Amino acid sequence: MTFSEFNLIERFFVRDNPQRKDVVLGIGDDCAILNVPEGQSLAVSMDTLVEGVHFLHDTAAADVAAKAMAVNLSDLAAAGAEPAWVTLSLSIPKIDMGWLQAFSDSFHELLNHYGLQVVGGDTTKGPLSITLQVHGFVPASVALKRSGAKAGDIVCVTGPLGDACLGLKVAQHKLAANGDVRDYLLNQYYRPKARVAAGIALRSRASAAIDISDGLVADLGHICKASDVGAVIYTEQIPISESAKQVTSAERVMDCALTGGDDYELCFTVPEDDLRKVQAALETVGVACYEVGRITGKKGVRVIQDGEELELNKAGFDHFAAA
Amino acid sequence: MTFSEFNLIERFFVRDNPQRKDVVLGIGDDCAILNVPEGQSLAVSMDTLVEGVHFLHDTAAADVAAKAMAVNLSDLAAAGAEPAWVTLSLSIPKIDMGWLQAFSDSFHELLNHYGLQVVGGDTTKGPLSITLQVHGFVPASVALKRSGAKAGDIVCVTGPLGDACLGLKVAQHKLAANGDVRDYLLNQYYRPKARVAAGIALRSRASAAIDISDGLVADLGHICKASDVGAVIYTEQIPISESAKQVTSAERVMDCALTGGDDYELCFTVPEDDLRKVQAALETVGVACYEVGRITGKKGVRVIQDGEELELNKAGFDHFAAA
Repeated sequence: MTFSEFNLIERFFVRDNPQRKDVVLGIGDDCAILNVPEGQSLAVSMDTLVEGVHFLHDTAAADVAAKAMAVNLSDLAAAGAEPAWVTLSLSIPKIDMGWLQAFSDSFHELLNHYGLQVVGGDTTKGPLSITLQVHGFVPASVALKRSGAKAGDIVCVTGPLGDACLGLKVAQHKLAANGDVRDYLLNQYYRPKARVAAGIALRSRASAAIDISDGLVADLGHICKASDVGAVIYTEQIPISESAKQVTSAERVMDCALTGGDDYELCFTVPEDDLRKVQAALETVGVACYEVGRITGKKGVRVIQDGEELELNKAGFDHFAAA
Repeated sequence: MTFSEFNLIERFFVRDNPQRKDVVLGIGDDCAILNVPEGQSLAVSMDTLVEGVHFLHDTAAADVAAKAMAVNLSDLAAAGAEPAWVTLSLSIPKIDMGWLQAFSDSFHELLNHYGLQVVGGDTTKGPLSITLQVHGFVPASVALKRSGAKAGDIVCVTGPLGDACLGLKVAQHKLAANGDVRDYLLNQYYRPKARVAAGIALRSRASAAIDISDGLVADLGHICKASDVGAVIYTEQIPISESAKQVTSAERVMDCALTGGDDYELCFTVPEDDLRKVQAALETVGVACYEVGRITGKKGVRVIQDGEELELNKAGFDHFAAA
């Protein structure tokens, strides 16, 4: 069986998932023909995951699918958009039916969960990599952006940070963990959750938002750059899971929380007066809201621990050696 | 310089090309936010080109960009859609500034030509491959589809077939060619033109349409399958360029025209009574219309030469050995 003889997208990615009414023409023609509902803008994001770069070699097919989907849906979440359609370009070294079945089963589980439909794609022979484009809806006037944060705004995150980074170290045998702690951390790394409902709840409420893929400091830095402001973070306020606390030193956990990435929680800013309303809105979708810092007029992201500023070096954050 | 330190998409693919008014938020945030005009549906297509599979090793960067764009725009053309936005995932083995400059220069030339805007993308380290998703507009009621051909309809193509296949053989040194003939054939292979204006002209006029990427017989076969009909093609009516006629035997040229692929002309069907109107509509956009066959009730695509049916074998088409 060769790639050209066999349409893998049709074979594995067209199933009897619920058909969306806004899909006029799906997979199988030259183009998909799609209707964006009146009053909504289209939010799109494309991300590629490459084996050995974005996920470990020999990651289970089901986990690769879940990760690819989460990474992309997290971008929709950060824009406050509601997921609708997905296109998929899959590069695989060989046609391994077992792998494809496990990958597509996991993929379809998430399609069903988010009410998404696959509307197009391509498969090619090559090193394992997955490119997804997700498409969602949001009225342009209430879409969340990186710009818009103002000095004085509160900086919040939607969940504990650092777990995925610790989970990666566990998967790489660089950190020992057992039982529930091990399971929890690996799950946070392999199966991150995109904060889709939280993003929708934050529409027109958050002054700026981003998803945490590169670590809190880097991603809050993107908000600051786009908003032309700075920020200060207080390490004592950063939510840390019980599993993280048990598995290694507080210093190592904090380093993961600040610079680790892969958490896919949302980081957002909100005017102080609106904080209670935002917390209530997130509560209705079952998502926590942790205050971790403040937007400032002074540029850059500063990290404060025990009243002292930490400095970033190659190994992570260290206590700042005052001049 | 590493991939993470440097946003190649922003560096090379955001330029002062005209900004489209329907782009609310472009590259640089978590999602692009886009407006589909009222009364229009969204047409999307995603294709991946891999070095060594879809284009030759050491193909010039400018040609890779042109080919990736043409292949994708050709899908929009086959749907009768007007190009609007593009997203790009580029996998490259190393950061070669000269290659990236040449690739993106060529890419931007085509963006300008088609009035397209890059609205998102990703770059990763890996074997050279390019995934594009193109987005266009077409009212759903007039979009061209593969289904809709009816017995008795005329089968037409928009230009000479087989040139790209011959051009590939020239590029591979499997076929000798010189001077203008060589230049023409190589250009047809490396720089196919997407029949965007023709597709728009065929809206609500053609009963079915497809772009010829796999060769006339295979692609007309897709129309027949989707429309639940068959077709007959007359080789004498297939348009062949003067360069093709000069470079090799008529038999070899016809084999390329029937099964070669990469031509990216449109193949479409039209009720006999509408043929003159369709020819006139294509004439206004400077595109020819060649009648090459007929849709039939009998399934399958049959090829007739000198009144006899040709049979496809591994080497191409041969005269049918009647039982």
